[in-house]
Amino acid sequence: MKPSLVKGTRDFGPDKMVRRNYIFDTIKAVFQKFGFQPIETPAMENLSTLMGKYGEEGDQLLFKILNSGNFSEKITQNELDEGAKKLTLKISEKGLKYDLTVPFARFVVMNRNDLAMPFKRYQIQPVWRGDRPQRGRYREFYQCDADVVGTDSLVCEAEIVLMIHEVFKSLGINFSLKINNRKILTGLSEAIGAAGQEGNLAVAIDKLDKIGKEKVLEELAEKGFSTESLAKLDLVFDISGTNQAKFIKLGELLQDSETGKKGIEELRAVWDLLQSFGQTEENIELDITLARGLSYYTGAIFEVKALDVQMGSISGGGRYDNLTGTFGVAGLSGVGISFGVDRIYDVLEELNLFPENNSVTTKLLLCHFGEKELNYTLPLLQKARLAGINTEVYPDVSKIKKQLDYADKKKISYVCIIGSEEMETGKLTLKNMITGEQEKLTFEEVITKLR
Amino acid sequence: MKPSLVKGTRDFGPDKMVRRNYIFDTIKAVFQKFGFQPIETPAMENLSTLMGKYGEEGDQLLFKILNSGNFSEKITQNELDEGAKKLTLKISEKGLKYDLTVPFARFVVMNRNDLAMPFKRYQIQPVWRGDRPQRGRYREFYQCDADVVGTDSLVCEAEIVLMIHEVFKSLGINFSLKINNRKILTGLSEAIGAAGQEGNLAVAIDKLDKIGKEKVLEELAEKGFSTESLAKLDLVFDISGTNQAKFIKLGELLQDSETGKKGIEELRAVWDLLQSFGQTEENIELDITLARGLSYYTGAIFEVKALDVQMGSISGGGRYDNLTGTFGVAGLSGVGISFGVDRIYDVLEELNLFPENNSVTTKLLLCHFGEKELNYTLPLLQKARLAGINTEVYPDVSKIKKQLDYADKKKISYVCIIGSEEMETGKLTLKNMITGEQEKLTFEEVITKLR
Repeated sequence: MKPSLVKGTRDFGPDKMVRRNYIFDTIKAVFQKFGFQPIETPAMENLSTLMGKYGEEGDQLLFKILNSGNFSEKITQNELDEGAKKLTLKISEKGLKYDLTVPFARFVVMNRNDLAMPFKRYQIQPVWRGDRPQRGRYREFYQCDADVVGTDSLVCEAEIVLMIHEVFKSLGINFSLKINNRKILTGLSEAIGAAGQEGNLAVAIDKLDKIGKEKVLEELAEKGFSTESLAKLDLVFDISGTNQAKFIKLGELLQDSETGKKGIEELRAVWDLLQSFGQTEENIELDITLARGLSYYTGAIFEVKALDVQMGSISGGGRYDNLTGTFGVAGLSGVGISFGVDRIYDVLEELNLFPENNSVTTKLLLCHFGEKELNYTLPLLQKARLAGINTEVYPDVSKIKKQLDYADKKKISYVCIIGSEEMETGKLTLKNMITGEQEKLTFEEVITKLR
Repeated sequence: MKPSLVKGTRDFGPDKMVRRNYIFDTIKAVFQKFGFQPIETPAMENLSTLMGKYGEEGDQLLFKILNSGNFSEKITQNELDEGAKKLTLKISEKGLKYDLTVPFARFVVMNRNDLAMPFKRYQIQPVWRGDRPQRGRYREFYQCDADVVGTDSLVCEAEIVLMIHEVFKSLGINFSLKINNRKILTGLSEAIGAAGQEGNLAVAIDKLDKIGKEKVLEELAEKGFSTESLAKLDLVFDISGTNQAKFIKLGELLQDSETGKKGIEELRAVWDLLQSFGQTEENIELDITLARGLSYYTGAIFEVKALDVQMGSISGGGRYDNLTGTFGVAGLSGVGISFGVDRIYDVLEELNLFPENNSVTTKLLLCHFGEKELNYTLPLLQKARLAGINTEVYPDVSKIKKQLDYADKKKISYVCIIGSEEMETGKLTLKNMITGEQEKLTFEEVITKLR
């Protein structure tokens, strides 16, 4: 039988692992520097925790786990006839987590008496979605989130902006960060005479980048926006200039909307905080068309795109008001950011930005001409490892070419070839596998050089 | 609705995460020092990959994932009547992985042309088993394995012994390592006149520690072992003394068994290699009753127990001959070791061996008396983080007591409290939260001290 992977899932071999861990470690270090702490939640959650949180489509895309035991005994022909949707709940109680936010909310509710509030956590784990697999979309993929809940201080928004800067600076990725505020979108719908329609408005203008202004206006017309509203909106799209200029124009535009003014005020406060932090705003843009499709956000909205490369957003987030409401605990406001690890990986690869990371790979391979030489290498191996150098011996007696191929394939930087002459003199030939350079050294000198 | 965890699963909060990562990082560093490289495989595998690999019981304990879409359309009343076992395969094609070995075998088969052989990989990931949850047994738990496949060099066995030593020495756990060889068990069954019965023999004597010699002999009698065989076996149980003494007695006992002699020869070779490595054998014991229940092993068998504490084995492994045979690729021999992370965690906790690990937690919290002071802290925050110090500001304007409680709960080592006097003089009070000591310092001095 020829084995295969489940569609939409991936193996990560050593090379990919090293590169992915480089991304994770970079992000983790930034999260920790800002006081976020790690948590992990199980892959499996009760369906009662997951269902109804992601809309009808989400409910269907959840991977559901079959109950153990004789689950079919309880099924009647009647239930069979009612279809898969109802039947599912008879034979399945558990599902794989769909995102990190709902399990985080459950975690907060279950542990709220023990948590230091405001609670700052990060979480880097796989999630599962039964989407149709396609290029760049997987059924099992990692999410990488940081959230702070239990405060509505705008310092948190400002710190998220700082974290975004630090992560992408560390990774060497040039980026642009767009910021908006959900309240501005609400104010906008009021200002154009379409109060209460900000949901439709947000969904439509979110596509501005992709389909252009005309199509967006068309879509809104279909949704029942009046010609007058759309004419006003058209003017809004033309707001441009520096962020400060936008703030001023926006202030005039939304002067009659309390919510809109609150949104501007919040964003201005974030801008002021960034200035206090000493953060320049060169790659930060106030973008009043940014909506990220979601009714979920209630305050700030963030989105990051990589420059120099064609790619969707590589990071995004925002403030929400009611993380834990569905679990009966009200009043927890939070703000979070999510890094798209798969896309960040692709950006780093495309721009050739991955560092040569040797901390994981083997640094030195000891090659040998036979049993006696192999035995001679063993105490040397111990010495090198004691000195903290990742070292291997080729474990079989084999042709030197095969041993060097092994070093090549594994990207090992240095090899020592040990034969009878080396054993006699104690002088070993150290070969740099990248430059091809060779040196005659004692093993102590080899260690000093490689340490 | 009050949310709950799926039975047999756990959340890991920040404290537990830091401690678990300490264990993982320690083990990873050792794996890497010996040339092992990380891989990861998906949580979901095709049931065709998983089924039939873990025996009938294993097949039942696999968590199976319901097919998407209208899976119930295809079910007939007839199929319903045939019971859950048959029905399962109609409505489920995927399962959660049950261990790391089978997915590893699949990975090797699918990537064998690209891998540097012998292939040394480690893998640290969760696995899932539908066991009845009980104290210390979970339905979702991490396995932590290292294997080398594609060589039968006994250097690999010796290096596994070295890795075991280095891991537990790094963790500060005193341990005893028992070693046996499956071929010795085979030879033993031949020597006592019960050739071909080593399966039953292994299963029974594996329980020697738990149920004692008498019960083991009883069980074997029930399995049809003759009185004569059991009398001979009784003598075998009495083999004692140093490892060298055991080797000699065992050599006499198994002199007529080719397989038995091969087993002794292999183990002696491992002992010799360890000596060449300079590894003392003080906590290594040749134990011919060690079987680890499994028909799986064909050569060396390892088991580690912690001293100073009552706990099952905390690590185990051995050599197997045919990792990839079930996937149609023959001839890959390998040897591996698995570390039991949950039990190691419990040992470290019970013996109070976890280090005070501050690299993840926040080192400094800036507290403040109000809005103005909060604003004053922002550039300080930046400076501290730039110096690589994990630093936070309490984001809300709150009573100082609440801010200090936050520091306490989060085990933050130092706080600076900033009021109008501090803003005027630039001299801040740095408080050590563990000793209670206070110092007046400029912020630059604070950074120098904490860096």
